[in-house]
Amino acid sequence: MDTLQGYEAVRFDEATGEMILLDQTLLPNEVVFLRLRDQDKVWEAIHMLRVRGAPAIGIAAGYGAYLAVLYSKAASYAELLPEFVKAKEYLASSRPTAVNLFWALERMERCLRRCDGMDIAAIRTTMLAEANAIKAEDIAMCRAIGENGLGLLEKGWGLLTHCNAGQLAASKYGTALAPIYVGQEQGYGFKVFADETRPLLQGARLTTFELFNGGVDVTLICDNMASMVMQQGKVQAVLVGCDRVAANGDAANKIGTSGVAVLAKHYGIPFYVLGPTSTIDLKCATGADIPVEERKASEVTDLWYTKPMAPKGVKVFNPAFDVTPADLITAIVTEKGVARAPYTESLAALF
Amino acid sequence: MDTLQGYEAVRFDEATGEMILLDQTLLPNEVVFLRLRDQDKVWEAIHMLRVRGAPAIGIAAGYGAYLAVLYSKAASYAELLPEFVKAKEYLASSRPTAVNLFWALERMERCLRRCDGMDIAAIRTTMLAEANAIKAEDIAMCRAIGENGLGLLEKGWGLLTHCNAGQLAASKYGTALAPIYVGQEQGYGFKVFADETRPLLQGARLTTFELFNGGVDVTLICDNMASMVMQQGKVQAVLVGCDRVAANGDAANKIGTSGVAVLAKHYGIPFYVLGPTSTIDLKCATGADIPVEERKASEVTDLWYTKPMAPKGVKVFNPAFDVTPADLITAIVTEKGVARAPYTESLAALF
Repeated sequence: MDTLQGYEAVRFDEATGEMILLDQTLLPNEVVFLRLRDQDKVWEAIHMLRVRGAPAIGIAAGYGAYLAVLYSKAASYAELLPEFVKAKEYLASSRPTAVNLFWALERMERCLRRCDGMDIAAIRTTMLAEANAIKAEDIAMCRAIGENGLGLLEKGWGLLTHCNAGQLAASKYGTALAPIYVGQEQGYGFKVFADETRPLLQGARLTTFELFNGGVDVTLICDNMASMVMQQGKVQAVLVGCDRVAANGDAANKIGTSGVAVLAKHYGIPFYVLGPTSTIDLKCATGADIPVEERKASEVTDLWYTKPMAPKGVKVFNPAFDVTPADLITAIVTEKGVARAPYTESLAALF
Repeated sequence: MDTLQGYEAVRFDEATGEMILLDQTLLPNEVVFLRLRDQDKVWEAIHMLRVRGAPAIGIAAGYGAYLAVLYSKAASYAELLPEFVKAKEYLASSRPTAVNLFWALERMERCLRRCDGMDIAAIRTTMLAEANAIKAEDIAMCRAIGENGLGLLEKGWGLLTHCNAGQLAASKYGTALAPIYVGQEQGYGFKVFADETRPLLQGARLTTFELFNGGVDVTLICDNMASMVMQQGKVQAVLVGCDRVAANGDAANKIGTSGVAVLAKHYGIPFYVLGPTSTIDLKCATGADIPVEERKASEVTDLWYTKPMAPKGVKVFNPAFDVTPADLITAIVTEKGVARAPYTESLAALF
C-alpha cells in the first residue's frame, strides 16, 4: 500500500510535530499537503472541508487534539486540562454536524483525564498513542471491510461506484473502495466505473483521483451513463458506501444511490453497501426515519460553472441523500462480516 | 400560445425580410434574437449550433434558402437557378450530419425548379410559401403529437422529462414537451421535473428555460435525483423524445434515457417516447442496429467548468445516446397516433 501513502487524507509527521492534511478542496487540479500545528489552522481545515468523510474528520480531530497538548506551555496536568478542554470545544465548533468529530474529541479528552499524575512528556506520548490508535483502528476496520467485500468479487470484474467512499474519506482503503484496493494488492485487475456524482462531483474529483493515482483501472462516467455500461455487460457488481443504515437494512447514502440500486436489480447485478458497523443505527427502524437534508439550489445551477446553467429563479430540488430500500441491497458489508436479508436479524447479529 | 411566441427557435419577419433565430448557445443567461439576411450568417448560425434540433434546423434551412432567393440580383429563373444551387450547397456544408438540413434544402430546390417560367416576384412568393409550409407542417405535426400524448395524461400529474425535445428543438410545442404545452392551454396544471442531462445540460439550459418562460411549473433536478422523485410519488408519467426508433420499438435518445426507463418500470410509472413518424426507421430491425456516437472526454471533465473536474488523463466513457429497449416503453406517441407493443405491428401500421 505504499503507493497510496502519498494520498492519505490525514497523517502525522512525528519528526516535525505536524499533522499533514491533503487539501481536498483543491483536488483534482492541485495536490497540496497542508502541514498544521496551530489550532486555528486545524479548525479552518475542518470547517472548509479541506478534510471530509466521517472517519477522516475523526482522525484529524484526534491529531488536532494532540497538537493542543504537544504545543501547550502548561507545566502540569492541572494546568493542561482546562487549556485542553478549551481547545477541544474550539475544534468541536468547526463542523457542528460531524458526529465523528465529537466522538474523537471526547475520546481524546477521556484519554487525557486518565493521564492525571503523569508528567507532561508522558502525557504527550500517551495522547499521541491515542490519536494514532484512532487512525490505526480505522485502517484495520477499512481493511476488514475490504477483505470481507473482496470475498464477494471475482478477478477481472467490472465494478461501479457512486460518490466517494475511498481512502480520501477515511484512512487507508476507505469503505466502498476498500475491496478494490485490497483486490489491487492481490492482482484482481478490476475495471472500475466511477459515477461523477452530481452536483458536488465527488466521483469525478475524488474517486477517479484516488483510484487513478492508486494504479486502478478507472473510467469516469456521468451518472446517467450507468444504465448503458450495465446494459453493455461491463459491470459485475456495484459497491457503494453509506451514511446511515436502518435496522431493517434500508441505507441512506449520497443522492443517486437508490437509482443505481434500481438499475443493478434490473440488469441482475449484485448491489453491495459497505460501511463500518458504526453507521448501522438499530434505533432507526426503517429508512423512513432517516431525515434527508435538502441543499441549496445554487449547487445545481451555479457551482463550478463559469456562468449559471439554468434560468434565474427556476425551482430546483437538491436532496443530498436518498434511501435505498433493503430489498434492492444484495448484502451489507461491514468490518464484522457480511449481512444479508432478512436484515433485521442479520444486522442485529453483528452487534 | 402567444406567450410562447417570443421563444420560438426560428421565425421569419416578412416586414423586414429577415430570419429571426434565438441564439441557443447563449441560453439561459442571455436571450438574443439574431436577425439574419446573409448566407454566411445563416451558415454560421447552423454551424455553431445557435439553432439545434432536427426540425428547427430544417425550418432554418428553408428560410435560409428563401433568403438566397429574396436577396438575389438575378433577373430571371435561368439566372437564379445556378446561383441558388450554389447557395444551397453552401448551406448544406454547415452541418454535414444533419439529415433535416439536406431534406429541407432539397425540398426548397424542388420548389424552385417548379417555378421555371415565373417572374422573380412570383418565384419569391412561391419560395416563401414553401419555407412557411415547412414550418407550418412542423407545427401541425408537433401539435398532433401533443394532442395524442395529452390523451395519455391526467390533470395535475407530475411529469418527468430528459434532455430537450421542446419547441426550442422544433417549431412550437416540440415533441416530448408538446403534451405539456397543449395541456397548459387547457389548464392541466402539470408539475414537470426536468433532468439536467449531463454532460451538455440541455435539460438545465433549455428545457427549464422554455418551460419556465412558458409559465409551466418546472423543477430542475440532477439526473441522479430522478429515482428519489419517483420514489416519493411525485411523477405519474415520463415523456422523452427520440432520435431514432427501430422497427421493433427500441428507441435511441439522449444518453440517460434508458436509465430513466428502468426507473419508471421499477416504480410502476408509464414511460412514453414521443416523436414524428419520420424518426421511425423500419429498415432498422432493432436497437442493436443503431450506432451510438461516442464524444470527447472533455465534455465530461472540462466543459462549462471554471477548471477541470477530473484528473488529467483519466479515462472517460462519453456516449451521446443510449438505446431504450422496447419492453421498457409503455407507448410510442407520433403525429399519426399512439403505438403500443407489439411494436413491430403497431409501428408498421402507422405508415
